[in-house]
Amino acid sequence: MSELRLNLVTREWVIIARERAKRPEDFKRSRRRRDIPVHSEGCPFCPGNEAMTPQECFRLDGEGGWRIRVVKNKYPALSDEGTRQRRIDGPRRMVTGVGTHEVIIESPLHNTNPALMDIQGVEEIIRTYRARFLEAYRDERVEHVIVFRNHGEDAGTSLEHPHSQLIATPVVPVQFRDRVNAAMHYFDDTGECLVCDILRSEMADGMRIVIDTEHFLTFIPYAALTPFHTWIIPKRHSASFCSIDEKETRDLAYHLNTVLSKFHRGLDDPDYNYVIRSSRPKDSENEYCHWYLSIVPRLVRSAGFELGSGMFINTTLPEDNARYLRAVEVA
Amino acid sequence: MSELRLNLVTREWVIIARERAKRPEDFKRSRRRRDIPVHSEGCPFCPGNEAMTPQECFRLDGEGGWRIRVVKNKYPALSDEGTRQRRIDGPRRMVTGVGTHEVIIESPLHNTNPALMDIQGVEEIIRTYRARFLEAYRDERVEHVIVFRNHGEDAGTSLEHPHSQLIATPVVPVQFRDRVNAAMHYFDDTGECLVCDILRSEMADGMRIVIDTEHFLTFIPYAALTPFHTWIIPKRHSASFCSIDEKETRDLAYHLNTVLSKFHRGLDDPDYNYVIRSSRPKDSENEYCHWYLSIVPRLVRSAGFELGSGMFINTTLPEDNARYLRAVEVA
Repeated sequence: MSELRLNLVTREWVIIARERAKRPEDFKRSRRRRDIPVHSEGCPFCPGNEAMTPQECFRLDGEGGWRIRVVKNKYPALSDEGTRQRRIDGPRRMVTGVGTHEVIIESPLHNTNPALMDIQGVEEIIRTYRARFLEAYRDERVEHVIVFRNHGEDAGTSLEHPHSQLIATPVVPVQFRDRVNAAMHYFDDTGECLVCDILRSEMADGMRIVIDTEHFLTFIPYAALTPFHTWIIPKRHSASFCSIDEKETRDLAYHLNTVLSKFHRGLDDPDYNYVIRSSRPKDSENEYCHWYLSIVPRLVRSAGFELGSGMFINTTLPEDNARYLRAVEVA
Repeated sequence: MSELRLNLVTREWVIIARERAKRPEDFKRSRRRRDIPVHSEGCPFCPGNEAMTPQECFRLDGEGGWRIRVVKNKYPALSDEGTRQRRIDGPRRMVTGVGTHEVIIESPLHNTNPALMDIQGVEEIIRTYRARFLEAYRDERVEHVIVFRNHGEDAGTSLEHPHSQLIATPVVPVQFRDRVNAAMHYFDDTGECLVCDILRSEMADGMRIVIDTEHFLTFIPYAALTPFHTWIIPKRHSASFCSIDEKETRDLAYHLNTVLSKFHRGLDDPDYNYVIRSSRPKDSENEYCHWYLSIVPRLVRSAGFELGSGMFINTTLPEDNARYLRAVEVA
């Protein structure tokens, strides 16, 4: 019989359907990615084509040129200019589309990505995330900031040059509010941070752990929404990503690089999204919220049931996913 | 500048990004569907192959054989057998996977669907939904029932023979709870049903209406999550789908058939999901919940931002979508 597991952080139920079980190997790509060149003539993110991007807002230089550039998105979902205005009209609520939409170009190399680059490269990306995250919140019109990465077409990206994105919105998404509420209720019930409790429990159990080091735990959540859904959680309680220090940055880079390398080798470079779920800087000290990084490989397609219920059907066991990833050797 | 619109029913924010605007015509399929035969030798849902399906639980007969069959899903996400049991283990919550997973085979013809069949055929499908919905709730282990349809590969279906599905779960999805809470707060604030208020407002405004008849309104929601996201809402207040009478059933069949025909003709037979969002039968009289049918064409792919925020970026104007669909002529 299948079982339903409740994700206490998101309050989402997941049907773990063993009867429909697939083995981890079954998720390997059937089609191969095409060979990607190290430099692409027409790519707006490749060195030499800097004039093709909109305004540059951040740059990290190294020997021989830039190592990371942050530019405005050419087709921004939200605009840097204008004032935040509300309109209430019967049951209609509107806010003007002010905010930020940036692209973080992660490398001058067209054919790399965080699974393939060295750890120093991933560290620099994380430092850049933090700098842009802090900068975005300096804008008083901004209520919430999302940093995310789309890898591959099934994950919604159209440009293959390695990049992440940052979107700063003038409202707080209900999904974030719901998680704060769930964390608050748990804190009221138990006097503990929910995520700290989950960390303790996962470390004691051990079955779902992929990587365990001094500052972070990478594991498959007990109620993973989809096959190989993965969380990277800081062991030190903090509500906001911006509070990470240098040692933690290096350790996070190790986790991100390693787990993405395991995906790359063990699952044949799957498409994925990752996102940093974090409170804003001024809420860093909040005792019931706890930031983390969530990775969702795009190995399955959601359908009407997921849409209609907000529940998920996962045809794999999280414990099996973790065991499989632990066994994948990376350099 | 783009604008953000709040969907008061789901509390989701949508970025309506005009700068990235696409015209409705841009969503037409680039690839053609292959020609589908009227009967397929190896299809388990085609007449003559009845022995290939698991247990039949409902059948509607007509001249010359069955017109609709309901069978157990061959790979059920949830099981009819066993008892509902809970396990609480630290921060882990589990419930045994009991419930129902049925397939509603909508026609003996392999190559039809609700956009192409006559209205009587769609009426029979709706009557079957209602019968199975009521039957599923007779099981005391069941807390919530979802009736949905996946059309096309991008919508998650693997069998092309026309069919819908019903899943009955032993828990209430958080998404449903959240909507009930939103409706309750609105009722407390205003003394009105939120959806009744939206209906009045949409009928007065008129810009987003696709089809308006005595018993139902089909329109593009003000904060449509995706291009051509469509709602079919009953004008008579009721919390549960099972309360529809014969006249309403015929009118709903007209709306569903007509709007899906408009999709078929105007958008070249797009993949889509639809789902009935309804309270359970014993909550039919609830004064702040209001059932409806939601259709989401799969014209765009969600990415890291949607995943990370629960917000959506819609590159079309709901008002334009409605105008476009109104102009599509169907027989």
